[in-house]
Amino acid sequence: MKLSSALLAIVASLSYAKKDGQALSPPMGWMSWQRYVCETDCETYPDSCISENLYMKATDLLVSEGYLDAGYSQVSIDDCWSTQERDDNGDQQANPDRFPSGLKALGDYMHNAGVKFGFYSDIGTHTCGGYLGMKGNFQRDIDKFVSWGIDYLKLDGCYEDIAEMHDDYTEVSKILDASGRDIVFSCSWPAYVNNHGEDNDGEILQTLSEICHTWRNFDDVADSWNSVSSIIDYWARNTTDIPFVQVSGPGSWNDADMLMVGNNGLSLSEERTQFALYAIFASPLFLSTDLTKVSPESKAILQNREIISVNQDQSQQGIVLSDISNDPDWWVNVRTFGRALSDGTYAVVLQNYGNMGPYVNIKFDVSLLSQIGASVTTESQYTMRNLYTGKDVEGTFTGDEFVVPVESSSVEMFIVTLA
Amino acid sequence: MKLSSALLAIVASLSYAKKDGQALSPPMGWMSWQRYVCETDCETYPDSCISENLYMKATDLLVSEGYLDAGYSQVSIDDCWSTQERDDNGDQQANPDRFPSGLKALGDYMHNAGVKFGFYSDIGTHTCGGYLGMKGNFQRDIDKFVSWGIDYLKLDGCYEDIAEMHDDYTEVSKILDASGRDIVFSCSWPAYVNNHGEDNDGEILQTLSEICHTWRNFDDVADSWNSVSSIIDYWARNTTDIPFVQVSGPGSWNDADMLMVGNNGLSLSEERTQFALYAIFASPLFLSTDLTKVSPESKAILQNREIISVNQDQSQQGIVLSDISNDPDWWVNVRTFGRALSDGTYAVVLQNYGNMGPYVNIKFDVSLLSQIGASVTTESQYTMRNLYTGKDVEGTFTGDEFVVPVESSSVEMFIVTLA
Repeated sequence: MKLSSALLAIVASLSYAKKDGQALSPPMGWMSWQRYVCETDCETYPDSCISENLYMKATDLLVSEGYLDAGYSQVSIDDCWSTQERDDNGDQQANPDRFPSGLKALGDYMHNAGVKFGFYSDIGTHTCGGYLGMKGNFQRDIDKFVSWGIDYLKLDGCYEDIAEMHDDYTEVSKILDASGRDIVFSCSWPAYVNNHGEDNDGEILQTLSEICHTWRNFDDVADSWNSVSSIIDYWARNTTDIPFVQVSGPGSWNDADMLMVGNNGLSLSEERTQFALYAIFASPLFLSTDLTKVSPESKAILQNREIISVNQDQSQQGIVLSDISNDPDWWVNVRTFGRALSDGTYAVVLQNYGNMGPYVNIKFDVSLLSQIGASVTTESQYTMRNLYTGKDVEGTFTGDEFVVPVESSSVEMFIVTLA
Repeated sequence: MKLSSALLAIVASLSYAKKDGQALSPPMGWMSWQRYVCETDCETYPDSCISENLYMKATDLLVSEGYLDAGYSQVSIDDCWSTQERDDNGDQQANPDRFPSGLKALGDYMHNAGVKFGFYSDIGTHTCGGYLGMKGNFQRDIDKFVSWGIDYLKLDGCYEDIAEMHDDYTEVSKILDASGRDIVFSCSWPAYVNNHGEDNDGEILQTLSEICHTWRNFDDVADSWNSVSSIIDYWARNTTDIPFVQVSGPGSWNDADMLMVGNNGLSLSEERTQFALYAIFASPLFLSTDLTKVSPESKAILQNREIISVNQDQSQQGIVLSDISNDPDWWVNVRTFGRALSDGTYAVVLQNYGNMGPYVNIKFDVSLLSQIGASVTTESQYTMRNLYTGKDVEGTFTGDEFVVPVESSSVEMFIVTLA
């Protein structure tokens, strides 16, 4: 990716981001965890167990189904790839039955396909699935992972004392910096602080943004609207005055966890909602689905170039701008989200999160954009483009003149251009 | 519907059911509540406000879209149809702005289309939406409703003391019996007992089955998997030793509330799950959706003749036969449901209610059917027909030989015929 000198100046001026020019946009790819968890029984589940076949097939499909072209540029191994014990040299090794060709060969396979090699380990003594962790072997393990050609490291936090996470994640970050290889570093530290019932304060966020390119903040996603909506609600509570939002930007992204689009637990409306809001949140976009089973409608969501472009914008993540609950009637529950984009336009999502009644006419109030830096009044004029229909909405609107019918459990997403 | 003499003898032998030959199968139709709630602003929402237009359109679509042919034989008005005050005679009347032709004309419109007229009122002083209730006017109101030609009465329980429900629902039942018109009577009494945190004991159920054809037991459904799965879980807890199941049968049905198939809150897998399990539960099947917006896939679910046939079977509702949670792995969560059908076959649903991982191979154990009266051992032979694919599964199976891959958040449904 070529960077303009203006953009490089901006990146260099950020006191907080990991300033190595990586992950200037949120990472995109495919990750095995949510859909394939830790199934290691390849006899019963030959097509879905954690094995080199699974990742080679995902690599092939990422290319052949057009996802790579759309920006999903990596395939990420997750938990349960290793043996239970280190080898005679003290190194980690892949399970030889499930990865008979070895991880160097698997990395080469991905690289030959033009796909980056995403990797997984744990900063504690064990992974969450009970496999080998890196604790006490940071340099040795990073050396090994680098020899396999990894391009991304999701470093989980099971079996690690939270009090040691600051120093340990910092140490691994330094080892990665010195490794001679570009490796995007994804840290799970804040998710464990959150799971522990504690708040992630500004100090933790400041450190994270200095040592990691991206980090998980909240619960693991499951393939259900209950899970996805809890994640969305979490981010809808975290507005401009929260450090999470303030530290987001090029090289420094909050990760809302994997997309469930294409699986079995979300309706099309809910899939559109997750995808639109992950663009507002500037979250990494990781598919975790069987790419052979994605319906044409779901694929169209995942490959919507304009929404991806909002997600990939090199700017701070967006926030909730309004939340109108039970007004004028108990079944009316609507929110507006917005994100200021680097070209001076604004991405706006109007969400109907009610689940009774058919649709709600949501009034778009352009003055809401003042919360994300726009100079607007209720008299300001603007034009709208609907990113799901791909059509410019006809006309130039003024103030609160623009009313959008939004179906229950769904969203409409727009680019707003001020006149 | 023509009844065989054998069937009439069975019905007559039931000591419990309301023995008038009505609702020998669970009622089917379209009901406005979940999708259209209490929207009365016809200026802002002309196509979705509670009005005669809404019900006439639903009637037309029920016919033109093939739902009537599939068995959905009624259109049900729900709350918010009336004025706020009785007329000079003391009678209830429809809101004249939203029902300018009046309810007699609306009933005639439905009857001319071959559709039954479902109706709604409340046994208390007011409906849940704050409109007129029947309390103190039972005879007068039933007379009026009969004059409008209603064929079904859902009688809600807001603004009524639970302690008075026994006597009041009994009184209305007697008035309906004496009305000279066949009117299926749906009672909300047990749902209010349940909402009140109390159990519905055998005595309540016995009374219900004598005075009502069907009754709501649990929470109102919303258009979300969270809601639908809570309803399914409720019934999965209520097994053979529960009075609910024991009193179910011709003329006496537990109502799990409306189908959400065709709306925005369920995935296709979740829609298939709700529909299959409502057939096992012998629940009334009420659509509550905008019939112009149902996708072909959802419509195929709603009009699946074989699953409807299971639902409509004149037999006791089915139960959960097994529930295997976190075995062998934490992401494995599967249940088996079964219902003994009157032709000697068995309807079986294998549900994967996990939301992590792609699919689980569920082993079907034919001996589970002994819980619903089958004479089986692990050596019994059987054949299987898949009701969603519409295909006979090849072969005759023995014992636990039959293994079915079931996707997460989904079901497979079979008719099992013992050899």
